[in-house]
Amino acid sequence: MTKYVYLFSEGNASMRNLLGGKGANLAEMTGLGLPVPRGFTVTTEACTRYYKDGQVIAKEIEDQIYEAMAATEKIVGKKFGDPTNPFLVSVRSGARASMPGMMDTILNLGLNDEVVEGLAKLTNNARFAYDSYRRFIQMFSDVVMEIEKSKFDEIFDAVKEKSSAATDAELTAEDLKEIVSKYKELYWKEKGSDFPQDPRMQLMAAVKAVFRSWENPRAIVYRRLNDIPGDWGTAVNVQEMVYGNMGDDSGTGVAFTRDPSTGEKKLYGEFLMNAQGEDVVAGIRTPYPIEKMKEINPEAYNQFIEIAEKLEKHYKDMQDMEFTIERGKLFMLQTRNGKRTAGAALKIAVDLVNEGMLTKEEAILKVDPKQLDTLLHPNFEEKALKAAKPIAKGLPASPGAATGKVYFNADDIVAAYNAGEKKVILVRLETSPEDIEGMHVSQGFLTGRGGMTSHAAVVARGMGRCCVAGCSEIKINEQEKYFIDKNGKRYNEGDWISLDGSTGNVYGEQLPTVEPEMAGDFATFMEWADEIRDLRVRTNADTPNDAATALKFGAEGIGLCRTEHMFFEADRITAFRKMIVSSSEEQRRKALDEILPVQRKDFEGLFEAMEGRPVTIRLLDPPLHEFLPQDEDDIEALAKELGISADELKNIIENLHELNPMMGHRGCRLAVSYPEIAEMQTRAIIEAAINVKKKGTDIIPEIMIPLVCELKELKFVKDVITKTADAIISEAGVDLQYMVGTMIEIPRAALLADEIATEAEFFSFGTNDLTQMTYGLSRDDAGRILEDYYQAKIFEYDPTARIDQSGVGKLMKIAVEGGKATRPDIKLGICGEHGGDPLSVEFCHEIGLNYVSCSPYRVPIARLAAAQAQVKNPRK
Amino acid sequence: MTKYVYLFSEGNASMRNLLGGKGANLAEMTGLGLPVPRGFTVTTEACTRYYKDGQVIAKEIEDQIYEAMAATEKIVGKKFGDPTNPFLVSVRSGARASMPGMMDTILNLGLNDEVVEGLAKLTNNARFAYDSYRRFIQMFSDVVMEIEKSKFDEIFDAVKEKSSAATDAELTAEDLKEIVSKYKELYWKEKGSDFPQDPRMQLMAAVKAVFRSWENPRAIVYRRLNDIPGDWGTAVNVQEMVYGNMGDDSGTGVAFTRDPSTGEKKLYGEFLMNAQGEDVVAGIRTPYPIEKMKEINPEAYNQFIEIAEKLEKHYKDMQDMEFTIERGKLFMLQTRNGKRTAGAALKIAVDLVNEGMLTKEEAILKVDPKQLDTLLHPNFEEKALKAAKPIAKGLPASPGAATGKVYFNADDIVAAYNAGEKKVILVRLETSPEDIEGMHVSQGFLTGRGGMTSHAAVVARGMGRCCVAGCSEIKINEQEKYFIDKNGKRYNEGDWISLDGSTGNVYGEQLPTVEPEMAGDFATFMEWADEIRDLRVRTNADTPNDAATALKFGAEGIGLCRTEHMFFEADRITAFRKMIVSSSEEQRRKALDEILPVQRKDFEGLFEAMEGRPVTIRLLDPPLHEFLPQDEDDIEALAKELGISADELKNIIENLHELNPMMGHRGCRLAVSYPEIAEMQTRAIIEAAINVKKKGTDIIPEIMIPLVCELKELKFVKDVITKTADAIISEAGVDLQYMVGTMIEIPRAALLADEIATEAEFFSFGTNDLTQMTYGLSRDDAGRILEDYYQAKIFEYDPTARIDQSGVGKLMKIAVEGGKATRPDIKLGICGEHGGDPLSVEFCHEIGLNYVSCSPYRVPIARLAAAQAQVKNPRK
Repeated sequence: MTKYVYLFSEGNASMRNLLGGKGANLAEMTGLGLPVPRGFTVTTEACTRYYKDGQVIAKEIEDQIYEAMAATEKIVGKKFGDPTNPFLVSVRSGARASMPGMMDTILNLGLNDEVVEGLAKLTNNARFAYDSYRRFIQMFSDVVMEIEKSKFDEIFDAVKEKSSAATDAELTAEDLKEIVSKYKELYWKEKGSDFPQDPRMQLMAAVKAVFRSWENPRAIVYRRLNDIPGDWGTAVNVQEMVYGNMGDDSGTGVAFTRDPSTGEKKLYGEFLMNAQGEDVVAGIRTPYPIEKMKEINPEAYNQFIEIAEKLEKHYKDMQDMEFTIERGKLFMLQTRNGKRTAGAALKIAVDLVNEGMLTKEEAILKVDPKQLDTLLHPNFEEKALKAAKPIAKGLPASPGAATGKVYFNADDIVAAYNAGEKKVILVRLETSPEDIEGMHVSQGFLTGRGGMTSHAAVVARGMGRCCVAGCSEIKINEQEKYFIDKNGKRYNEGDWISLDGSTGNVYGEQLPTVEPEMAGDFATFMEWADEIRDLRVRTNADTPNDAATALKFGAEGIGLCRTEHMFFEADRITAFRKMIVSSSEEQRRKALDEILPVQRKDFEGLFEAMEGRPVTIRLLDPPLHEFLPQDEDDIEALAKELGISADELKNIIENLHELNPMMGHRGCRLAVSYPEIAEMQTRAIIEAAINVKKKGTDIIPEIMIPLVCELKELKFVKDVITKTADAIISEAGVDLQYMVGTMIEIPRAALLADEIATEAEFFSFGTNDLTQMTYGLSRDDAGRILEDYYQAKIFEYDPTARIDQSGVGKLMKIAVEGGKATRPDIKLGICGEHGGDPLSVEFCHEIGLNYVSCSPYRVPIARLAAAQAQVKNPRK
Repeated sequence: MTKYVYLFSEGNASMRNLLGGKGANLAEMTGLGLPVPRGFTVTTEACTRYYKDGQVIAKEIEDQIYEAMAATEKIVGKKFGDPTNPFLVSVRSGARASMPGMMDTILNLGLNDEVVEGLAKLTNNARFAYDSYRRFIQMFSDVVMEIEKSKFDEIFDAVKEKSSAATDAELTAEDLKEIVSKYKELYWKEKGSDFPQDPRMQLMAAVKAVFRSWENPRAIVYRRLNDIPGDWGTAVNVQEMVYGNMGDDSGTGVAFTRDPSTGEKKLYGEFLMNAQGEDVVAGIRTPYPIEKMKEINPEAYNQFIEIAEKLEKHYKDMQDMEFTIERGKLFMLQTRNGKRTAGAALKIAVDLVNEGMLTKEEAILKVDPKQLDTLLHPNFEEKALKAAKPIAKGLPASPGAATGKVYFNADDIVAAYNAGEKKVILVRLETSPEDIEGMHVSQGFLTGRGGMTSHAAVVARGMGRCCVAGCSEIKINEQEKYFIDKNGKRYNEGDWISLDGSTGNVYGEQLPTVEPEMAGDFATFMEWADEIRDLRVRTNADTPNDAATALKFGAEGIGLCRTEHMFFEADRITAFRKMIVSSSEEQRRKALDEILPVQRKDFEGLFEAMEGRPVTIRLLDPPLHEFLPQDEDDIEALAKELGISADELKNIIENLHELNPMMGHRGCRLAVSYPEIAEMQTRAIIEAAINVKKKGTDIIPEIMIPLVCELKELKFVKDVITKTADAIISEAGVDLQYMVGTMIEIPRAALLADEIATEAEFFSFGTNDLTQMTYGLSRDDAGRILEDYYQAKIFEYDPTARIDQSGVGKLMKIAVEGGKATRPDIKLGICGEHGGDPLSVEFCHEIGLNYVSCSPYRVPIARLAAAQAQVKNPRK
């Protein structure tokens, strides 16, 4: 029989997949002899079984839960539902991967009308007992029974007002009893039955609610943004309650073994006295820094310091811990590898190696490549920053600089973003998991409440967004969509502000930004990555400027230069359009002759910038109609410029129209119809290489033919290229090498790669198009479809966002095998956007590609991902 | 060293691939001891080598040709270029597959100014000698040197006029000498050099010209239309000349061992006295029927009869022979399996079995499945035919009935066809290979000159087109594009006529047509095919009418019922449009409720028509915007009908617009977005099946989900279907079975077929879409691309026209293997248009599909192709 429930004493850290992160770490801590409240974990397999059984908890799982409950009662010497010696528990979710704020938690479970009275007597603290009960009723009703939380808040606030209590702490036991009574009335009204008094029924309903919450919309969105598969499921942790709210000798807090913002080696955290964990995380009261605990309870503080050190050494990583002090006694409620900023991640990784705790290979695995992104984006220009005057200051919750227009809720900001406003900032009193999509599109977040570990701060660091939290100097009106700064100035929806996540400063204007430096820990760390990795990293760059940026980021060549972008620039678009509307080869050649010198100059610039590194240039790819204007005025203007009538031009545009342009007259098909275009481009490339070579820079241009589906078509275009190139080279009398290869971006090319490789000297996987054609799904038209597919839980994320290993990946493997069979030394790369996606990079490493190519800003990410792939699966 | 040249005495019929059809048969006849003029064959490998070497004949090939020439000279006892005893040869092409009129021929090679004099002396016939020389000069100049033939014709006609000769035969030796002299002048003017006098140079130039002609545009088009690969190449036959034009005791002719129009067992042919072969084929003089030879030369006639019988027995097939009588002596110039009409092919196949000459299996292979097409199309309605009065009568050259608008040249008819005129008839004085594309789009051909073996007649029978040839009763003016009938009435371009290819009658009007009967030899033959084949044949049918036609043609079920066609009919399109523009599920359901009863009735009709045979119904597939009107007036009208404003409707249409609709919101993606559509369709199918079952017809509907790319999506839609169906079935209390399966039409579905098969009970390959996506080529946009690709010799035919075995076929094999691995008894079929293409059918047989499905008219073709596949590669 499958074991679905493990006591903490039965598990350990290696059982993360089964017990979830939280459960595995609670078990590990228990094993280490740390003060962990007793309890057990219902496995992730129980969750997947629950869904398989049609959202029912099987009898055998229920039985195992009750057994574990009985065993735990025995250990703690209390009894579930016994008013004279009540056993109360928390029920918490805990997935394999940490999903902060995504899953639901229930505290104080086991309370009912009788038990609360018993608890009051036992603790001699009626206020505490009823405070616990009212919290439980509200949480249970909200999370398990789905009664709106705000309805409870209304009752709570009304009683608070009636009794003139300024803070929650001022509420008396009588007030809390009244609240409990009103809560129960509300429950009856909403559900038509009494609030459940049977603790076993409460427990099973809570477990079910945790399982259910795995599929709530927030969790699904979070998983989509964080590459977490939907079939993992969550575990459930049932744990003895300890109370930070038992009076002034009690408290609760969270702490990191190192500073999660900077990586500095010092204990970093905050706590609240007489409070439960939710109070800290929700950011409702502003907590004390952890050091203050030394004054309040030095013994517990020292014990905590010792435990923190022990845990960091044990896990060989910075720890994020939750603790509670119940009547002076310390309990550890959680430990996990702490989330951190990218800068902190690098510093911690480098420090841990220097401290001898990790090898370089181990350190490489400690940093999420995606996180580097934050280090690669601009900061504010120093001069502008100095001149600017902050309009408010909050907590520097996540570093970086953000400039954007303000929006006051997730829906508005998503709508604005989708309408084209790419620079937007979310301003909220405090954020909640419901805001997750809005946060994702934002440059940064500004919140009026909450601390460094509030929801907004945690999410910001995870996403690599800048965040200023707990900024009480501004008054936010979410309803009417504005805020007032410390000087009384009003900012409405759509106004510009800037956030400095490293200082907490807020500016009431748009500030210019500058590129970051790649030095210090970053440089050290990336050096290690480069030492380790076997997969090369190139960049997609069309201009010398792009190329220079990419070089700074460590690019080892250009994997994709898209020549079409070169045609859109003002000094050549007219000549190019002339070429398109030409009615004869002669006219076309004349127009191409105008383009040749500018294109040659482009290539010279690129070659010079790359200083001898390989450069892959793709011949013209998009359908010609993309270059022609669409609206009346532009057509009129162009017609005049071209010396033809607007009707003629419209006719030409009409004729170029295609029903499915993606599968139409583009790529090498253009070169077959108009070999003179390929000729001109070859001439520009080869002449540029010769000119640059004469100046002393050796270059081997790689000419890439796009959209090939058939050997003969490749050969036709290759013949045009080699004939042109060889003639130029022999005329110039220069010893210039060049290569001719092809994109593999059409399924047929992948299937027939063995044939294609007889002519192609290299393959570059164009996984953007390859994915769309393999799925039969046009990315441009996928918006509506994807929404419905997420809804129906068919897709968990956009299938075009990364390499689909099972489908597209199968084609890639066929192509790699075929290509190598024909030409063992064939050069294999990828130049789709996937080249900068860590999971895709790992896949490329595994199937044996020589390089990935990605946008300049993604180069460091790809370098790290490649190093991690090598550590996990060495291939040299 | 490779042997590139074979004497006729060195080859045999089995060497067709190497020697070409003509060469292999000449060798075989030589081996049989028949009177064949001596000679040799330059192999097809020499041709492919010629192209590989860059259109150069390698030295070793040249040497072998001269060696063979010397050997032949020795045998015949004459000498090439020797005026006292000249050896003259013909040089003819001969590919593996017969390509009538496609390749070029040169006669009388070896003549020059000296040799012609010698020949005149030797034969004591100066007229004959100079007639031969002028023919040679013209042919060599035209075919080898590419000087326009018409320039020679002008000279010829001028001399003829000057000497008042009514026919060619009336020209004197002096006239012909003058012509020769003027021809040579013309040659000098055109080429700047003398007409080549060196016979060896003539020979090598002629061989080269034959090789070159393999790639002439006519040959390429012919190959495209006839599935002949471009890399086969042609052989060259060099053969001693014999002369049908040596006087009145000489002649030349062609004959078939059975009537190629009807299949009747009797010698069938025609001949001309004092003529060379080109005169018969070109249709310039009207020849005698073969029987007349008995009077003229009974000995040769009897010898020919004997040879004809011998050859038919030897080849076990009807023979098409060319012969020449030189001064009373019979020579065989060619034999081959004769082209024949479909009706004749069936009769001959059945007769040969009955005569004990063939087994049924052998007979099955004798008929080209594509040819059956002619038997499956309409004839004229008998009543209308009786009432109609012919406006002229010609030779019944290819049977069948054609009705269409007349056009007078290939370009015009192709243009008209492309502009949408699908019923067109080509009217020409005589056709020539240049007309091949125009002939392909025509319903039939009408020619003013030429016999039963003229170009038009041969091509018509090969293509299965109706043809009335040699219709001298009409006067055709090709230049001014009209003809005058026997009553003096004028018919202009675009006027309707009708042709009866079985009687030779021409009608000056559009005549109604009727369906053909499938009886007699046809029925017998198809019965044999059905006995033999293992692959089932279904049909694509959307209406009971289609289904009935298909049943008549032998369909064993419906492989594809496209439900979308059902929505376009007048009584439901409005309801369907209402459904599309609905803004809520409720509105949508209301509109669907209106459609349900009509759709149910459609299915009932289909099920009843199919009488218990399997019926596969595909859920709605095309994007919804296809159902909405596009032009202003229609939008206005629809908006009114729907009770919304035109602007609202335009907005909805705008929103449904897609950039690449083929890869957009269609297929099962619609069912995911609007499960209520799938629900309604399932309801209609299941209720219809129940109703039909209650009336006594058992049916197992196969519900097919289109455009699947992912298991979860299939499961989602399948769940909608089974939930709906099971509820209806259980409510009805009827024991109804049904199946749910999927199209495999997206590359990813093929790649992941093993997963897909966990839910799909059957696969049906949608090779139309699968081909387009595998090639990344939209058929709708391919026109221009294909033209350029034919031009560049990248494609030889439209790659979407049949299954691309190497690319798409590879995906299909992956899918078949995957599907069977998961579900060994999975039902596998194909429902793309390829299901009716013989080569594709053979491929489907080979990879193990259970059935093909094709349009009703293609069912017999598929049945025969399936039987042939089984004979060639038995699988049961």
